[in-house]
This record gives sequence, C-alpha cells and structure tokens, in this order.
Amino acid sequence: MNKRGLILVISGFSGVGKGTIVRRLMEKYENYALSVSVTTRPPREGEVHGKDYFFISEEEFSAMEKEGRLMEWAGYVGRHYGTPRDYVFRRLDEGKDMILEIEVQGALQVKEKYPEAVLVFVAPPGAAVLKERLLGRGTESIEQVEKRLLRAVEEAEAMEVYEYLLVNDELETCVEELHRLMQCEHRRTNRNRELMEDIKLDLKRFVEGEQ
Amino acid sequence: MNKRGLILVISGFSGVGKGTIVRRLMEKYENYALSVSVTTRPPREGEVHGKDYFFISEEEFSAMEKEGRLMEWAGYVGRHYGTPRDYVFRRLDEGKDMILEIEVQGALQVKEKYPEAVLVFVAPPGAAVLKERLLGRGTESIEQVEKRLLRAVEEAEAMEVYEYLLVNDELETCVEELHRLMQCEHRRTNRNRELMEDIKLDLKRFVEGEQ
Repeated sequence: MNKRGLILVISGFSGVGKGTIVRRLMEKYENYALSVSVTTRPPREGEVHGKDYFFISEEEFSAMEKEGRLMEWAGYVGRHYGTPRDYVFRRLDEGKDMILEIEVQGALQVKEKYPEAVLVFVAPPGAAVLKERLLGRGTESIEQVEKRLLRAVEEAEAMEVYEYLLVNDELETCVEELHRLMQCEHRRTNRNRELMEDIKLDLKRFVEGEQ
Repeated sequence: MNKRGLILVISGFSGVGKGTIVRRLMEKYENYALSVSVTTRPPREGEVHGKDYFFISEEEFSAMEKEGRLMEWAGYVGRHYGTPRDYVFRRLDEGKDMILEIEVQGALQVKEKYPEAVLVFVAPPGAAVLKERLLGRGTESIEQVEKRLLRAVEEAEAMEVYEYLLVNDELETCVEELHRLMQCEHRRTNRNRELMEDIKLDLKRFVEGEQ
C-alpha cells in the first residue's frame, strides 16, 4: 500500500448528508482529514481560524490565486472561498487522505489540475427523501427547500464528471462503501510504483542469489 | 448498482495462488463466474467439455479468431488457447462478473479490445514465499521451479499494465480485497448511466410535481 494520502473530492446535493458521512468517516478511520478552506468572509461567532476556516483578506486571497496556491476557488455573494494547496499537500505527505467537500465547479477545477484526485458524488435514494431531509433540518423555509431542490436538478447534470456514484440510503453502509472505495484506490498500480519496483528488485535479487 | 457484470482479468506469477483466490471468491460470492477457454489440445483424462475447456478443432479456432469471436488468444507448444467472447458476454448479460485468469499477453489483448475490463495483478509478499509455494505444490522439480522464478522476473515488468495490484499475503484477506475492489468498480459513474438518468428524472418529476 502506498503511504501518501489521496485527494478525495466529495460532492452531492444539499441535504444528501455529505457532512454527516464525512464526520462519520473520520470518526471511524484515522487515515482521513478534512481540508480547511480559506475564505475572505469574516468569522461568525464561535468559528475558529484554522479549524472552521482560514480567515484571510481579499489581498491574500488574490495573491494565493495568482500564485497557484489554491486547488480550487469560488466566489459567493461577494466573498471568496478556496482550498489551500499547501495545507492539503502537507497533510497528504503525512499520509492522510484529504477530503475536499466542495461543489461541482470546484470539483471540476480539482480534477483538471489533479487528475489523480478521486471524485465521489453522493446521491439520495430519491428526491422525496432529499426533501424530507432538507425539511428535517428545521433550519430552512419551504421556499428555501424548494430552491435547493431546483438547484439539485441542475447539479445532477454534472454527476458524470465524478468517478464514483454513492447512494446515501443508510449512513453506515454509505460510509463503509466510501472507505472501501478509498482503500481500493490505494491499490491502483499507478499509486504503487515504489512497491512494484520493490517486488521486481526482490525477485531479481532472489533469482540471482539462487544461481 | 449496475446490473451487467464486469470483466475481471486476473494475472500473477505462477505459484502466487491465483487459482485458489478465484475458487474462494466464487465460493463466497455468487456474482462471479469463471470464463471457460477454448483450446485445440485434446482433453486429458477426466476433463469435461464446457467445464474445464471447450475442446475445438484448429479449424474452428481459426474461424473464431478471424471472426473476432475470441477476446484474447495464445499459442503454446503447437496448441491454441483462447477466451470465447460469446460465452463471456452472455454471462456478463446475466449479471455475472466474469473472471478471466490469463497471462500478461492475453491481458493486454483484453485491455486493448475491452478498456472497461478490470485488470488485477496478484503479487506474492516476497520471492522467497513464491519459491516455497511453488515447491510446496510438490509437483515440480527444483529446475522447473527455478524456471518459473526466472519467468516471474520477466512478467514483473508488465505489472504496470494492470489497474490494481494485490499482494497475496493471506488468502482470505486477498479474496476480500478483490471482492471489494470489484464492488467499487461497480460504483463507477460510467457504469451507472442508467441509475444517473433515473436520479435526474426522479428529481425533475418531483420538482415539477411540487410546483
């Protein structure tokens, strides 16, 4: 098994349960870590710099973008959000599989720059379930929920960009599937060049030693 | 999950335990079936047509090859061996993941013609273990074993052609890894076009129905 971590991009409709899946995955397995985004919006009450976000200025953000230090970025109501490359890569080097919970546009940017990233789309078992989950949060009006559903219709068009499709029917099953999927990705030959070289060398030396 | 089966090509050095892995995989899980090869060599005592091999004439073989009805083929000491496309595809349509236990040259042919095939290479945990396993069979002279090891050195060069590398350290672990790997492959978006269309349609209809 290779030691370096993998980039895991996870997207899905609002309300599908991405956040819960990611939290549960990290609770169960040590080899995952969540990327911390940079943002130019001010911290909200209780938010911690370096944990919830890295809060930076528009100037810093702009510099990071120009210097290619953002893996992906997006603007939203006048504020900017992005994934800091150095932070993610440092943790990849430590062997962590780094989770980027981002939207379709960001996922496309990551795939373009880092084709080795593993892109997973999480879908609900059905639209009715999605609506129930959104309403179940109890934080949004019915109008907001309807808007999110309309958005899901649009986002669904981008599913084929992703490598894998998971259906979040039952949380624990979905988490296990995601974990197994990452374990399998670690087994890819193109991520095990060193191991293959070791196998070749071991065989050669052994055969030579025998003669 | 898609319903059509996948082509699983499994290769590995002689003595690595491919046959045992495949047998155990099929014992544990119903969704696998082993491809039956065609051959022009005569049946040996106890061999059953349609189970061990399809025994055919050189003329038939040649016709199959010309008509593109072989997924891969090879010659060996004046006899021919090949994987019959129709047999494999019929079982794929039935939903079976079809196992092709073939050598590197055949794997290359399959990959060229059927890029959707999943290619897995099984390596031993070490050359010394490989030798032990070969000797442990008790069916070959030390010279034959040495020849197989020399062959392994050559075959090792082709490992990177495969998508996945499994190390057969402990049988049950290796079988589980192989099974999980296939389960993950079934989750690929490009194998779930129908499911994705269903998700889109369900969302659209639901949103339209709500308005």
